[in-house]
Amino acid sequence: MGLKAVVLLSGGIDSSTTLAIAKKKGFLVYSMSFDYGQRHALELEKARSIADLFKVEKHIVIKLNLRAFGGSALTDNIPVPKDRNEEAISQGIPVTYVPARNTIFLSLALGWAETLQAENIFLGVNAIDYSGYPDCRPEYIKAFQKMASLATKAGVEGKAKIKIQTPLINLTKAEIIKKGAELGVDFGLTHSCYDPLASGMSCGKCDSCLLRLKGFNMANLKDPLEYPAK
Amino acid sequence: MGLKAVVLLSGGIDSSTTLAIAKKKGFLVYSMSFDYGQRHALELEKARSIADLFKVEKHIVIKLNLRAFGGSALTDNIPVPKDRNEEAISQGIPVTYVPARNTIFLSLALGWAETLQAENIFLGVNAIDYSGYPDCRPEYIKAFQKMASLATKAGVEGKAKIKIQTPLINLTKAEIIKKGAELGVDFGLTHSCYDPLASGMSCGKCDSCLLRLKGFNMANLKDPLEYPAK
Repeated sequence: MGLKAVVLLSGGIDSSTTLAIAKKKGFLVYSMSFDYGQRHALELEKARSIADLFKVEKHIVIKLNLRAFGGSALTDNIPVPKDRNEEAISQGIPVTYVPARNTIFLSLALGWAETLQAENIFLGVNAIDYSGYPDCRPEYIKAFQKMASLATKAGVEGKAKIKIQTPLINLTKAEIIKKGAELGVDFGLTHSCYDPLASGMSCGKCDSCLLRLKGFNMANLKDPLEYPAK
Repeated sequence: MGLKAVVLLSGGIDSSTTLAIAKKKGFLVYSMSFDYGQRHALELEKARSIADLFKVEKHIVIKLNLRAFGGSALTDNIPVPKDRNEEAISQGIPVTYVPARNTIFLSLALGWAETLQAENIFLGVNAIDYSGYPDCRPEYIKAFQKMASLATKAGVEGKAKIKIQTPLINLTKAEIIKKGAELGVDFGLTHSCYDPLASGMSCGKCDSCLLRLKGFNMANLKDPLEYPAK
């Protein structure tokens, strides 16, 4: 029997590739998504399709009303920026930042990992194309891991500690896409858009769509998703 | 205008006293409770009564289905232990431990604090009568604070850092009760029982009732709650 791992799965390119990496390494994968009041539920369906594709042991969706405190374009009534150039995207923390999101998601993964007696949590953060989110930096991940090892029964009882695995942390978006393609991720099942059209089609103009399209371009691969004609 | 603080409020003695301390210190208090699939919703009503009593700025309840991963007598179908003696209570981590609970709650408080631009989070943990929970230890709190300061916009932008305030950490239950009484906490509005009767009356036999009753006894105060006749 393999070791268990909890994988945080949003249904985007990064988390889907991370799940594929955890499977490739031989872990029994338990994937976890969040219904946190994001504007569109489409990414939850996509996450489940990816979980099915990779035959995970179990996939759960945690409901969590982050709208109760708002503060982000993804959960509040703040417009999603469109058609920004690379310089604008790379400067400062965007309005699509959800306060403390990775901390909240990792904490819930920690709770499930403790219940499952899984010692590994996989998170698809990336320090290169990270759009300025503070909770995607390596020093943050290290501090979370230290806190987590003190938070749990295992920490008290001197058993093995929780490891936060971030296999994408030093990869560019293009490298992530190549890696995912090698490992069998069907990018047609993934979702990146912050603000899809009513039909579900990605907008092609938000920061997330622009980073995705640039990544496919740099990887010399074709994005299987459709976008509106320009 | 005073400084803002987020206070984690379960409606028990410790969190209610902590809220009273935050008010006494002059903070504008934003209180936060969790509907996390605990067996009884009574403590959520009690928490709201305490928030009303102390006229907080805002009280929110975050819904969160921790039952999705189970693993605790408080969220799963595991019996709550009764009539244990002090030695049994003080040994090991009880089945009422909810995996990573304080980490999950603090993470959500961190998200709200960031939205409110509050720099202080109050948590009523206690290292003395802490019943063996790993996430009530001072070294855990310190590690959380360090992680939190790296997780947020403020951490990136070099602004003031988040402070996790734990004013009860070195007090006994009796000292907490005395402090709360001085600051006007109506203990008749608080709730401690892990397994109340159908009428809502506290059982008087679970670890939490036993610690509460011992605390009132040591403080030479009368617990205003009623308990079943022995």
